Parts: sequence; structure tokens; C-alpha cells
Amino acid sequence: MPQISQKGQNMPQSPIRKLVPFAEKAEKMGKSVLYLNIGQPDIRTPEVAIDAIRVMDRKTIEYSHSAGGANYRRSLAEYYRSCGIEVTPEEVMITTGGSEAIVFGFLSCFDPGDEVIIPEPFYANYNGFAKIAGINVVPVTATIDNGFALPPVADFEALINEKTKGIVICNPGNPTGYLYSKEELEQLRDIVKEHDLYLFADEVYREFCYDGAVPYSVMNLEGIEQNVILIDSVSKRYSMCGARIGAFISRNKEILATALKFAQARLSPPTLGQIASEGALKTPQSYFDEVISEYVQRRDILVKGLNEIPGVYCPNPKGAFYCVAKFPVDSTEKFCQWLLEEFEHDGKTVMMAPLAGFYASDNKGLQEARIAYVLEQDALRSAVECLKEALKVYPGRIQQEAGSAEQLA
Amino acid sequence: MPQISQKGQNMPQSPIRKLVPFAEKAEKMGKSVLYLNIGQPDIRTPEVAIDAIRVMDRKTIEYSHSAGGANYRRSLAEYYRSCGIEVTPEEVMITTGGSEAIVFGFLSCFDPGDEVIIPEPFYANYNGFAKIAGINVVPVTATIDNGFALPPVADFEALINEKTKGIVICNPGNPTGYLYSKEELEQLRDIVKEHDLYLFADEVYREFCYDGAVPYSVMNLEGIEQNVILIDSVSKRYSMCGARIGAFISRNKEILATALKFAQARLSPPTLGQIASEGALKTPQSYFDEVISEYVQRRDILVKGLNEIPGVYCPNPKGAFYCVAKFPVDSTEKFCQWLLEEFEHDGKTVMMAPLAGFYASDNKGLQEARIAYVLEQDALRSAVECLKEALKVYPGRIQQEAGSAEQLA
Repeated sequence: MPQISQKGQNMPQSPIRKLVPFAEKAEKMGKSVLYLNIGQPDIRTPEVAIDAIRVMDRKTIEYSHSAGGANYRRSLAEYYRSCGIEVTPEEVMITTGGSEAIVFGFLSCFDPGDEVIIPEPFYANYNGFAKIAGINVVPVTATIDNGFALPPVADFEALINEKTKGIVICNPGNPTGYLYSKEELEQLRDIVKEHDLYLFADEVYREFCYDGAVPYSVMNLEGIEQNVILIDSVSKRYSMCGARIGAFISRNKEILATALKFAQARLSPPTLGQIASEGALKTPQSYFDEVISEYVQRRDILVKGLNEIPGVYCPNPKGAFYCVAKFPVDSTEKFCQWLLEEFEHDGKTVMMAPLAGFYASDNKGLQEARIAYVLEQDALRSAVECLKEALKVYPGRIQQEAGSAEQLA
Repeated sequence: MPQISQKGQNMPQSPIRKLVPFAEKAEKMGKSVLYLNIGQPDIRTPEVAIDAIRVMDRKTIEYSHSAGGANYRRSLAEYYRSCGIEVTPEEVMITTGGSEAIVFGFLSCFDPGDEVIIPEPFYANYNGFAKIAGINVVPVTATIDNGFALPPVADFEALINEKTKGIVICNPGNPTGYLYSKEELEQLRDIVKEHDLYLFADEVYREFCYDGAVPYSVMNLEGIEQNVILIDSVSKRYSMCGARIGAFISRNKEILATALKFAQARLSPPTLGQIASEGALKTPQSYFDEVISEYVQRRDILVKGLNEIPGVYCPNPKGAFYCVAKFPVDSTEKFCQWLLEEFEHDGKTVMMAPLAGFYASDNKGLQEARIAYVLEQDALRSAVECLKEALKVYPGRIQQEAGSAEQLA
């Protein structure tokens, strides 16, 4: 029997999906599992998107252009301009989800052995995309103590060497919900400019900013126009994760031409998803107003509820639909598994994503978990109640303040 | 400005799309271009597929399982069983087109520097997928003289060394239209078994076999069950290239588990495409009967017409919807470009795919071109007429027999 590749062996499992078998077991035992572990919102897709599919008048579902349909690219460029991001349709390449955009970007910008710096905790699949490209992720650690603000410039500088080729950020952040300020982004700009790095920014949660916060796009940072690659997706914006439509955006013509070669090899992004996504561009503002209002209420219920549980700390996120909480437990890996295997309250339990898998450094985030507020408000109230009761009886509970418990782990 | 990666620089351009700018210019000049260069059939998608999308009752277009929707995998396994390929739903993983299945397979089976042997001419995008995985394609040359039959076993053996990890075939073949016999596949099986290689088989043209020929799947080769990876796609079968739904099929559990890790990183294959593909499984046999009959008539018009042009040779393909013809010209790269730039007949010209880009060896196939019979019969008659007239006036015409002209190039 032939061997599996080293690359395949080293490819990480999704930490978000690792607990799935325990959740399935919990369901089989008759428990109702509140799934707060993944970013699949229960929000409805805008009707204009679904209608676009229903009324489509095609006899053949053909390939689109490898860079995406011309009409969709044009309309999408207009959408970006309406967000204050000046791009032409030629600077926008349609991809199969934001995932593919990142892979094409990594392959176009980096060679095996190159290093990219990513503030941790970060979206765990960046690890997988880096493995595909054969590049090394070098983490710079953010802390829950300041809500996961950008680490100090000196921390980045300390990591930069001749192998460093880029920095990757997600803004607003998954898993942190943190929204970088213009000042923080200008700090990044200065580092990128000084060392002539690529700056990848995953801005797929752009629409989800709260409390009057306004997102600032890396596309508007002056002086690094040729260094910036914007990663985008319709998945979260219109709650249509299954469309698998993203975008790769840059003002660097050479990078666009290179990414297009990777795009040509896979022929075309999904045609049906593009039709739905083009329809989605006509989504009325009222849809977003409603959705944002709903997310803010959910966040408030969750964050307030979590902070009221003795020993739990949860900074208030300004964006996306995740929060990270710190629990007074030995290990959230164990705690999350125990919640599914051993615990129930009123027939319910909670599934969260342990945060260790979102750090590239060892032994970080052992008491932290990501909670996606993708379920309705009553479910979130039940989840908080569950967690409160669970912490009363969890055998790995640590008595002292969460703040000082990290060292024990 | 930061550098493009070496990998990106080395990524090949699609040879099929390289002539596109010349075609665009021809159109602008008012010529009608007969596009026989790409595998985008004009055949309609079965109504059951499009209807499945129209009537779908979903409020949210959600991610599917990373391995594809459970129902679709079950139904697809049944389809394979109906083709005489015994697989379970667990052995079938849904991918974003056949392209993604090949990439996941290469990444799971091979490491950078490994070699795979591919009979040339082959589907040019295999080069791109190999570049992504960092592996080297080693060609074994087939010849138009016997219609591109499998090269002799000795030719494979001569290329095998300690770096050789796999063999990749496409059956029925793109670009050749050649259908490997059971005997040829058993020869391959023996090589694969002796050297414990992986055998990738791209069988996306399974339904398109003519003159009573029956395709034999590598999944039915005995003794190499753990070595075989079947690549499939709905693109050609149901003329729905834009759905971007393929499949990765293997009986090797370790390979499946590894490929699934790559699949998890990109979250899910397209949901809308899966709905259409599940609908397509109900396509009545009459649809295929009609389509096959249409393709046979097209092939007959094309192959007969081409062979009647003095100096042109075109073997009769038994499968897929391509044929390769050899032209009495200096170079089909030049000839195809000249057809678009300089020639017209009754306001029409032809776009073909020069075959050099389908060979990994240098200086092969310089007089050959791939012609996809994806347009209706009258268009094919016009194309043959165009080529006949063009060869009367093409300045790079070579007077002697096509058979002996290769040496001149």
C-alpha cells in the first residue's frame, strides 16, 4: 500500500470540527446540542439572492470566465466603491469562497519555506492553507486582556527575518471579534512598507461592526498599494456560506495575473453561486439593519451573561459574530468535550470551539473558547444558563481567578 | 514592490485560453469565430437538474458537510453501482469540480519533488495541479499513429525510479478521445502493483463512448484497490460545467481521511451545485441516448471531413468529445493564431487548441491540434470548410505528407 504524503500527514484537522463525533453522540443520547462552535449563521439569505436562482433563464449551466462573470465583477466593484474601496472590475477576481482566494494568494506570493506572520488567535484554516502552499506561519500573540488588540509593533519586528514575506490579518477578527482601528492598521502599514511585505487582509465580516464602529479597509492604506491583497466572501455578508463565492482583490497587476493562472487551472468559480451573489448585491439596507440589530442583541445577551458567571471573562467584541471567553477550567479542550459527553441541563448542552487550535503557539488559549452567536436569542440565553450550571459541577474547575489560572495549565 | 513567488512564475498559462485575445480581436473585426478550442458543450443541461434549483425550498444557503451532502453522496454511490463500480457513500467525497479532486489527491499522495508519470498528450491543467503540489510530471509519449493507444509497458518502466509515486490517466482521453481497453488498463495495473504506485484515473467522460465501446473503470482492476483514486465530475456528463461539482473516490481509507482534511480547510463544496447535481441523477436514459447520438454524428462529420482535406490526418476517437488532427503546417501554434488574425472564409474562422501545450516534452505535437466537437453539426461543417480553404493559402503550409513533416519543426 503506498504511503500518504508528509504534507497530507502534517495537514491539520479542523479544530472546529474535531468535537463533532462527541456532539453526534450527545444527540444520539437525546440531548439537544446548542451549536455555537461554527460560523454558520441561522440568518436567512436575502430573498433577492434566492430569487435570482429561481428565475434564472439558462438552458446550460456553463463555465464562467476563470476570473468570474464580467457582469458580476462589474457590480461587485461598484459594491466596493459604495464601501469606500475604489477598485476596478479588473482588480477583482471571483473565487470559490474566500478560502480559494487565500490559497491562490499564498501560492502567488510565497514559496515553500517562506514565513508569514499572523496575530494569534487566528482563523484556524489559515494553517491548512499555509500547509498547502508549504509556508510557515509565525504567530505574534494577542491577548484577551486587551480584547485581542494588535500586538505591539516591536513584537512584529522581533519576528521579521529574511524569510518573512507577509502578514495576514482578519478584520473584524475571527475568532476574536476585534476590530482594528485605523491607527492599528497604519502601524501595520509602516511595518509592511519598511520590510516590503505582502499584507493579506480577510475582511469578510466587514458588514458586522457594532456600536457605531466603522471598519477601515487595508485597501485605503496609503503607500502600500502594491503590497495589499484583500480577501472577501459573500458567505457571511448574505448568510450564504454554501454559495462558495469569494473574491481576490489587489491593485498589483502582476499578482492578479499570477493568481489568474491558478484560477485558469481550475477553470471557473461556481456559476450558480455567482448568479445568487449577483442577485444578493440588490439586498436592501433594511436587511442589514435588521441583521445587525439582531447580532447586537445576541452579542449583548451572550457577553453580559458570560461575564456574570463567576470566574468567566469575555471582552465585548465590536465586530463579526464571535466572542472569545476565558473560563475558570483546567482546559477548554476537556471542558468542551465534557459538556458534550457528561453534562446536560434541562436536556440541553453547548458546543463551543476550544481556542487552543486557533493559536499556532503551544500552550496558549487553554482556558479560552470561541462562541459564535449564530443562534437566536433564546438559545443563547439557554447556552449561558448551561455554562453557568456546568461550571458549578465540572470536575476540572479551577477555583482561583481566571486571570491567574493560565500558569497551571 | 514585493516579488511574485517562483511557484507563481512557473505556473503555466492555460494553453487552451492562450489564444483568447486573438479570438477577441477577430470578433471585433467582425469575424464569426467557431470555438472548437474548449470543452464547453452547447448541449443543454437536463431539465431535472435546473428544476431542482428552481424549486429548492431553503431560507438559507448553508455550507454542506465538507465531504458533501449525505443524501447526494448516497445517491451518487448508487449511480456508480449502476455503472458497475461498487462503492459506498463513505468512499465518495464531493469536491469543487474534478479539478479540486485532483489537487486534493496530489496533495494527499505526493510530496514536493515526487514524480508522476502521465501519458502525453494530456489535459494541460494537470501541469498546473502538479505545480500547486510541487511535484514533477514525467511524460510517457503516445502517438497519433496508433490513435494515442497506451504507450508500451517498457516505456513506463524506463521512467520509473525511486521518486516515482504515481501514474495519472484520463479515460476516455482528453485531448485524444482514446478509450483504453481492459487489456491496456491491466498492463497499467501490473506496473502500479509492481512498484506500489498510486493510480489516478480521470473518468469524467465515462458516458461518452461510441460505436458500442464500453468503458472499463480502474475501480474494477483487481489487486490495486488501495492504490486507485478515481476522479469524477458532473461537468461533462450533464453539460453543467458551471456547477463545479466533482468527486474524489477511493477504497483507501487513509487517503480518504487525508483528502478530507484538505476539504475541511475549504469548508464545503458548492451547495447549489450539489442540489443541481442531485437532481441530475434523475436524468432519463433518453437524454443520454440523444446526446450520444448527436456527438457521434458530430464526430463523424468532423473526422470524415478532416481526413478528406489533403495532408490532414485525424484518427477516429471512441470517446469524449475531442479529436486530435495532424495538419500539414509548420506549427499549429502559428496556424491557429493565423486563423484568427489573418484568415476568414465566408466571414468565419475557426479556433482550435494547438497540441504542444498538451505535451510535457518539448517539440512534440507541433503539427497537431485538439478540436472539441461541442458545436452543432452545421458549425462543424463550416469549420471543416474553413480549414480546407485555410490550408490552401496558409503561408506556413508544408507540401510533403503530414507523416514525415515532424522533423522539419
